[in-house]
Amino acid sequence: MPLVQAIPLEAVPPSLQDNTADIDRLKLALLPVLRNMGVAGRECVVPVQSLPRVAAGFRAAGFRGDVVVNMLPRRVEIVDFVRDGTRPIMAMALDLGTTHLEATLLDMRTGNSLAAGHGVNQQVRFGGDILSRIHFAVRSGPGGEPDISGLEKLQREVVGSINQLADDLAGRAGARPEDIRGLSVSGNTTMIHLFLGTSPYHICREPYIPLVNAPDPCHAVDLGVAIFPMAPVWILPSIGSYFGGDLISGILASGLDESAATRMLIDVGTNAEVVLGNRDWLIACAGAAGPALEGGVARMGMRATAGAVEHVRIDTANWQLNYRTVENAPAAGICGSGLIDLVAEMYLARIINFRGKFPAAVEPCSEEHRAFLEERLGRDDTAPFFVVVPGRETADGAPVILSQLDLDAMMRSKAAMYAILTTLVSQVGVDFHELDRIYVAGAFGKHIDPGHAITLGMIPDLPLSTYESVGNSSLRGAELVLLSESCRHRSRDIRRKVTYLELNVNQEFMIRFSGARFIPHTDPELFPSVPSFRNGSDEDSA
Amino acid sequence: MPLVQAIPLEAVPPSLQDNTADIDRLKLALLPVLRNMGVAGRECVVPVQSLPRVAAGFRAAGFRGDVVVNMLPRRVEIVDFVRDGTRPIMAMALDLGTTHLEATLLDMRTGNSLAAGHGVNQQVRFGGDILSRIHFAVRSGPGGEPDISGLEKLQREVVGSINQLADDLAGRAGARPEDIRGLSVSGNTTMIHLFLGTSPYHICREPYIPLVNAPDPCHAVDLGVAIFPMAPVWILPSIGSYFGGDLISGILASGLDESAATRMLIDVGTNAEVVLGNRDWLIACAGAAGPALEGGVARMGMRATAGAVEHVRIDTANWQLNYRTVENAPAAGICGSGLIDLVAEMYLARIINFRGKFPAAVEPCSEEHRAFLEERLGRDDTAPFFVVVPGRETADGAPVILSQLDLDAMMRSKAAMYAILTTLVSQVGVDFHELDRIYVAGAFGKHIDPGHAITLGMIPDLPLSTYESVGNSSLRGAELVLLSESCRHRSRDIRRKVTYLELNVNQEFMIRFSGARFIPHTDPELFPSVPSFRNGSDEDSA
Repeated sequence: MPLVQAIPLEAVPPSLQDNTADIDRLKLALLPVLRNMGVAGRECVVPVQSLPRVAAGFRAAGFRGDVVVNMLPRRVEIVDFVRDGTRPIMAMALDLGTTHLEATLLDMRTGNSLAAGHGVNQQVRFGGDILSRIHFAVRSGPGGEPDISGLEKLQREVVGSINQLADDLAGRAGARPEDIRGLSVSGNTTMIHLFLGTSPYHICREPYIPLVNAPDPCHAVDLGVAIFPMAPVWILPSIGSYFGGDLISGILASGLDESAATRMLIDVGTNAEVVLGNRDWLIACAGAAGPALEGGVARMGMRATAGAVEHVRIDTANWQLNYRTVENAPAAGICGSGLIDLVAEMYLARIINFRGKFPAAVEPCSEEHRAFLEERLGRDDTAPFFVVVPGRETADGAPVILSQLDLDAMMRSKAAMYAILTTLVSQVGVDFHELDRIYVAGAFGKHIDPGHAITLGMIPDLPLSTYESVGNSSLRGAELVLLSESCRHRSRDIRRKVTYLELNVNQEFMIRFSGARFIPHTDPELFPSVPSFRNGSDEDSA
Repeated sequence: MPLVQAIPLEAVPPSLQDNTADIDRLKLALLPVLRNMGVAGRECVVPVQSLPRVAAGFRAAGFRGDVVVNMLPRRVEIVDFVRDGTRPIMAMALDLGTTHLEATLLDMRTGNSLAAGHGVNQQVRFGGDILSRIHFAVRSGPGGEPDISGLEKLQREVVGSINQLADDLAGRAGARPEDIRGLSVSGNTTMIHLFLGTSPYHICREPYIPLVNAPDPCHAVDLGVAIFPMAPVWILPSIGSYFGGDLISGILASGLDESAATRMLIDVGTNAEVVLGNRDWLIACAGAAGPALEGGVARMGMRATAGAVEHVRIDTANWQLNYRTVENAPAAGICGSGLIDLVAEMYLARIINFRGKFPAAVEPCSEEHRAFLEERLGRDDTAPFFVVVPGRETADGAPVILSQLDLDAMMRSKAAMYAILTTLVSQVGVDFHELDRIYVAGAFGKHIDPGHAITLGMIPDLPLSTYESVGNSSLRGAELVLLSESCRHRSRDIRRKVTYLELNVNQEFMIRFSGARFIPHTDPELFPSVPSFRNGSDEDSA
């Protein structure tokens, strides 16, 4: 049952013998229909803002047509009455990311996608990552009072970004933004706070308490979203400051909460968020494992857009480096999956050692090897670097390089990721090998080569078939809650079902993190499929 | 249980071990309290507009204090959190009349009245009565499309009038309008339509269908009412175009719907509205009997304000006319009760005949009588008139007079009133003598002398103790729904319980109306207590 729907209805026209008021007449005619739909117990209301429109539409249609309702958990809101029951009833599903927005426009009658698109979260003007947004949102005012003018700015920016995307999608579907009659939003906790105009101040301050996890549904007009004013806005609930609705979406989309077998979901975005569980229990944690993989940290890092190096192979027989860029455009940087490929291949080619460092000296084993090293290895004022793509092949003539600093960030990210995964399974006494499926969400999941991630010791050494990419599951979850009431129920149930493991105060995590700062791991036996190159002479450079 | 209330509450502060989000924490703490109040089944929501305020208040108060909730029939809305639990939680009850507004400000904690006041409905600028307002609200636009610019104007005016009154009352209570956290409104169907900004077009057009009878609760901000934005606005439901929430208020205030004995309620405002019934059944009707009594029609008519002649006695022993004005101010006009007194006394003094006409000739029976007639009776171009107050005693030096035209209007009103009452009782086969109580509402009920109204044949000839004035029961009903949930339930139940008798298409009413156009009645036996002066020589003047 969709969040917004057009229900065919026919009422007896008024007469002197039956002088029921128009709106009461409409409600009375709707009642048996709702009963047939199994939702008779819900309060049926016409919001005062909708009264004139509903009444005019009902009269104009001659008391028969389609009543447009918002199907909320406990109430049915009548928001329009249309004569023509064939036009699509559109609603927009939105993945509200820290840097990017992605959305689809769905027809609520058929479930079909009418348009899809993406845009930038214009908030980036005021801070690239979550923390900087939080700090920008709430500052100390002159008298020590909190100054929330930043929050207002951020809210305006994100709403502006959403409006632009809505306008864009409506246009592509041959409609106007006012034709979008519902909106679902999936995003991290901070993005949702900023969208709602609620202070994110405590999200990043101990004990890390969000202001709200499960906001009640509201209307587009309440938030300034320029679609149908009374369109319901359904926000995927969060579980904690570092566990947002985007991951609940992931659980929904992957079906983790309905699986008999214990499975795992990994979502790497701004944070790495991981859920382990099945239909009986769910345990989750999140940590800052993402940045180096998301394109935000490495000097040449970028998102997986045109020109991003996404695959790398180093042929150690002929000492050739082969790469592929997104859309085969001239190289402009390197994305998360490219980075994992690159670092894994550098390790296998022994260009870096098991500590993730350039070794002090490498003895070339052939002429090609020497030429390769000479061309690729360099050193600037502070640290050594590796040339991934020489300047002659790049978009702007500058080489795409990976420095020791980038490598260090990457090592921290991969160590954090593995530490998160192991801490989580150890909490419930599950062994990795008991998992028959590990879902990997997001652009990360779509592009990475699990084999290379295993080589790095980022993810457990399991058969590659265990790993399954689930695409943008945040957006998929948003679509599901638009289309299905049981998914809306599930999203709320999941929230109640998930046990959240706070890593910020977890000693075990810190120990595991230290152990994971090697390739593949301090304990190579955990990664039997990965060659171990460890010897005493393996000294680091710099 | 008041519509708005402050509920004391204490929550466990957040910690790393308990990282429930603030709003969820608040809801969780409220849950057992609601259970104790017997309203556990209601949906508990924080409207998105209230999120920032509630969250900030909850934190600032250290997670303990008073949560302010709107107690709606199916949901509990959390709209504020205050630390200081001693200040009054104020709400305003409003009688929204066609020409006048009357309101009280109540403390929801105690039920005490904090201030009372009244004001003018500024809509009068655009039309004095209901019909002219309806015609002003919706006109034919250039292309035949309805032009609702008038409706928007009227809505603005009434909201402006309410805001002024709210400001006034808050000031008197030492508070600001934003401190008013709830509003109940009782008014006729048209006034409610105009307040809601919904078209009243069909109210005065066959088959006389209101757009809405029972609007769902909304918030002050939705209507532009400048009090606490999320204050719930509770509107007394209407039953039909000519039977508004003001009369439901009257039923509530008089307790007609809970009475074991069959009783009657008469409310004369712009219309005469009458309800007959008991706790098992209620039947109602309404008709245009009011204007002459309300001060709107008679040339010298006015409301019962300073200077209005409100009581009249004609001493036929000495042929003196004694009168009293409201506040003993110099006479400026005559109000409904004064008119009834006057016409009844004129009949008893045989200055007018049983047809309500000045006789062609009167034979004076004494010198005083002759002088009285000479001073008081006159004739202008069109018709004879009677001087109620000579110019030397009035506020502006012009005499207060009653012309034949005024008398005719009065006769129609009184005939309509009696016809309404008799039609109603005959419908259910009840005899007037079976009624142990007849409540008379409004200024009409407060000021009239039932004895004189009986003399005119306006109301049935019953013991005077049968009649009980219930004051401004429209306002009283509005107060009751603010204070008591059972009254809110009752107001909705009454709506469902009342059978509405449409007089516009009632043949019996027209016959009874004709029979009642005499003093006291065509059939004097219906009024044994009233002297009958009927003889053949009783010819009319003019």
